[in-house]
Amino acid sequence: MIMQNLGYYNGRIGTLDELTVPFNDRVNYFGDGVYEATFTRNHKVFALEEHIDRFFRSAAMVDIKIPMGKTEMAELIRDLVRRVDDPEQQVYFQVTRGTQPRGHVYPEDMVGNFWVVLKPTAVKDIGMEVKAILREDTRFLRCNIKTLNLLPAVLYSQEAARAGVYEAILYRTPGQSGCGGELVGGMPTRVTECAHSNVHIINQKGEFQTAPLDNLILPGIARAHLITACRALGIPVNETPFTVEEMMNAKEVLISSSSAPGLRCIEIDGRPVGRQATETVVALQKWVKDEILAATALD
Amino acid sequence: MIMQNLGYYNGRIGTLDELTVPFNDRVNYFGDGVYEATFTRNHKVFALEEHIDRFFRSAAMVDIKIPMGKTEMAELIRDLVRRVDDPEQQVYFQVTRGTQPRGHVYPEDMVGNFWVVLKPTAVKDIGMEVKAILREDTRFLRCNIKTLNLLPAVLYSQEAARAGVYEAILYRTPGQSGCGGELVGGMPTRVTECAHSNVHIINQKGEFQTAPLDNLILPGIARAHLITACRALGIPVNETPFTVEEMMNAKEVLISSSSAPGLRCIEIDGRPVGRQATETVVALQKWVKDEILAATALD
Repeated sequence: MIMQNLGYYNGRIGTLDELTVPFNDRVNYFGDGVYEATFTRNHKVFALEEHIDRFFRSAAMVDIKIPMGKTEMAELIRDLVRRVDDPEQQVYFQVTRGTQPRGHVYPEDMVGNFWVVLKPTAVKDIGMEVKAILREDTRFLRCNIKTLNLLPAVLYSQEAARAGVYEAILYRTPGQSGCGGELVGGMPTRVTECAHSNVHIINQKGEFQTAPLDNLILPGIARAHLITACRALGIPVNETPFTVEEMMNAKEVLISSSSAPGLRCIEIDGRPVGRQATETVVALQKWVKDEILAATALD
Repeated sequence: MIMQNLGYYNGRIGTLDELTVPFNDRVNYFGDGVYEATFTRNHKVFALEEHIDRFFRSAAMVDIKIPMGKTEMAELIRDLVRRVDDPEQQVYFQVTRGTQPRGHVYPEDMVGNFWVVLKPTAVKDIGMEVKAILREDTRFLRCNIKTLNLLPAVLYSQEAARAGVYEAILYRTPGQSGCGGELVGGMPTRVTECAHSNVHIINQKGEFQTAPLDNLILPGIARAHLITACRALGIPVNETPFTVEEMMNAKEVLISSSSAPGLRCIEIDGRPVGRQATETVVALQKWVKDEILAATALD
C-alpha cells in the first residue's frame, strides 16, 4: 500500500482526510500534548534519534506517559515513512495525555495516545534569504517544552504571513508581566526565538551568538547542529542573550528550524540587517547541508 | 431521544464515547480554539447570554470565526440541553479555528468548527470550604482570553489534586520572565487568579478586593456576579491587585468559577487563612445562590 500522506493514531493508519480521533482525547480540551517534527530525504529520517530524545524529555516535563519505548518508536516511524510514496516528507509526531471526559485532573496511570503525520514536503532551500517582523514575546515561561499549546505561535505566524515575511522574531522586556516594578539602568529587551524557529546572530566580534538554553527558548536541534558546525569551522560560539539592538546591528542574523536549518535573515520590520559576513554564512550553510545530504544518502 | 451525555460537532450529535472528530482539526496541532463553560438546573442554562458574549469576544481576540450568530447559538444550546436526561448538566462549548493539514498559517476566510459537550454534573455546594496551594504563574500574557491552551492549568490542577486541595492560587513576580533587571523598592508578588477560578479577598478594610481586568486574569462571570452582589449588599469593591501577603492576612479568601461561584478558602499551603468575616461570606453566598435558583426555577 503506497499512500500520498499518512496519519497514525494508536495503531490505526489512514490518510489524513479519512482518519478521525476520539472526541474526548484531552488534546481537544487542553492542547494536552507534546510533539516533534523533522523530515525525510530518500525515505530516510534526519536526526530521528535526537528528535525522539527531545520528545521523551518534553513528555516527561509535563508528566505525559508515552505508550512505547524509544527503539520501538524509531522502528514504527521508519516503517510508516516507507509506506508513503514521496521520498521527501515532513515527519511529525505527537503524544497526547490520554482519552477521558473533560476534567483538568487526570488519573496518575493514564497512558498517552501516539500520533504520526507524514506529508510530502520538499526540503527547503537553505540558501533562501528571508525577512522577519519583530513582536513582543507573550508566551508562557516554559518554552523549552515542545507543547501543543501553540496558539501564540499561530498568531505570530499569521502576522508574519500578513506582512509578507517568513518569521516573527520575539523579544521579552523586564516587567512585561504587568506586575509593575521600576527597573534600574534601562534594562534592554532580550531576543528569545521566533514563532517556530530559533534565531542567532554573527555578532560584531564574529562570534555565533545564540540565546542560552533556559526556559525561554526551545532547545532547537538545528541550533545544536549549527553550534557543532561552528566548532568544526573554528567559529567562536557565544551562548548569552542578545538584545534587539545588537541583532539589528549584527553582521548576520540566522533563523533555524528542523525544516529550514539555517536561513539568512536580511530584513527585520522593514530595516535591512546583516549581510556583513557572507563567507561565514556560506560556510555554515554548506556544512549543515552536507551533513543532511550524507545522513540521508541512498545506501 | 433522551441521552445520558451529548457531544455536538458541526451538526453531528452523539454520545461522547461514540463521536469522533477529524484528524486535521487545528485543535489537534495547536490547541487552536476558545471555549466556555456554565451549567444547567431544571434544564435551564445559567447566564447563557453572558457566556456567549464572552465566547464571541475570546474568538475575536484570536481571530477565530464562529460559524453562527449569538441567537442561533443560544437556541442550539438550549435545544441540545433538552435532549439530555439529567436536569443538572455541565454546559461546555468551544470553537476551533478550522480543519486543515498542519501549518501555522491559516486561510483568512477559514470558518471555525463548533463543539458542544453536555454532561450530568451536580451543582456544587457553595457552602463548601476549600484549601489551596500557591504556585508561580508562568502562563502566557493573554490570560484574559479563554483559550484551549490549558496545559499549565492542567499541571497546576494536578499539583493541587496531589496535595489534596481544591485549587492552585497563582502569583506573578516582576522580572519573572528571566530577562533579569534589578527592581527598586522590593516589588511584592501579585496574586493573579487560580488554575481554573478567580480569587478574591475580603481585605482588612472589609472591602471585596479582586484583581483588575487586565491581560493577567480571565474576566470571570462568577466574579462579575460577586461584584454585583457586593453592590447590592453595600460591600465596598476594590479592583486593584493584592499581594500574597495581603491574601494570607485577609479577613477572607474567596474562590469563584462558573461551576462554583464563591467558595470560602480556609487554608493555603497548609496555613490557615480567612474566617474573619463570616457574615459577609454568608451574605454573598446567599445572594449568589438565590440568583441562580431564581434564574433556573421551573416555570
